[in-house]
Amino acid sequence: MRNLSDIEQSFEIYLIGKVERKNSKVYIKLFEKYVPALKQLEHFSHVQVLWWADKHDNEKSRNIMQTTPPYGENPPVTGVFATRAEYRPNPIGLTTAEIVSVDYDKGQLEVKNIDAFDGTPVIDLKAYFPVCDRVKEASIPNWIVGWPEWFPEEGFGL
Amino acid sequence: MRNLSDIEQSFEIYLIGKVERKNSKVYIKLFEKYVPALKQLEHFSHVQVLWWADKHDNEKSRNIMQTTPPYGENPPVTGVFATRAEYRPNPIGLTTAEIVSVDYDKGQLEVKNIDAFDGTPVIDLKAYFPVCDRVKEASIPNWIVGWPEWFPEEGFGL
Repeated sequence: MRNLSDIEQSFEIYLIGKVERKNSKVYIKLFEKYVPALKQLEHFSHVQVLWWADKHDNEKSRNIMQTTPPYGENPPVTGVFATRAEYRPNPIGLTTAEIVSVDYDKGQLEVKNIDAFDGTPVIDLKAYFPVCDRVKEASIPNWIVGWPEWFPEEGFGL
Repeated sequence: MRNLSDIEQSFEIYLIGKVERKNSKVYIKLFEKYVPALKQLEHFSHVQVLWWADKHDNEKSRNIMQTTPPYGENPPVTGVFATRAEYRPNPIGLTTAEIVSVDYDKGQLEVKNIDAFDGTPVIDLKAYFPVCDRVKEASIPNWIVGWPEWFPEEGFGL
């Protein structure tokens, strides 16, 4: 597992679109090439948006392995994989968002909310399938045990 | 949105570890550098594993925009963003998995199940926070409406 060729291996991610915030609305605007990949998405209520935290695409942020979360009660030192922090070895953000509408002509998706800045690169979209992502019995650490048990109706925003 | 410099933009993803299947068990084995980032993960019941579908990291697979899903009743032609297919512009797989144990000395995480082959590159781990990912009212298209409404107890495997 630790030979150098493996460790140095990397993969290329393409930008498929961007987050666009306009008049208090939030859009995922896709490049023309990727618009056909939206087909049928309007029949799902939610989508998982994978985005690239470009402000943390640098050597410093990508080498942060632990943090003390700015939430919870007396949060302990925590590995970044046990958080949703944007600074992590691969700065991938993942936000579930409610779909408002899909506009094929404009090549965009309107979502209710997202915790990514205007202009943030988007790298993937995945329809939200309850069978994949809705865990009936999920437990979290004691220091955040007061948190809501469900995705909030208003979604996650900035 | 459509100028060439944007379209050609790409980002570098590093391999942080690999899926290891051994004696009917499933591990996420991390490179030593990333082991500290696991801290506290054992206090969550589930984790989202982001992996790289390396068999589809080629020009052909990355240019598939639509497919006819091999499931559901009379599935229509569907954009890949409305599926969980591994062939997609950025071949990122995302699987929620139940955590069995975290072994810091061995630098690995045992999970109950995962739908990725032995040796599949892993690119990120995110603790499963119900507030982020557990949607109370989520709807799906009519042609898959008979599907389970919850993540199965046995998880997703091959």
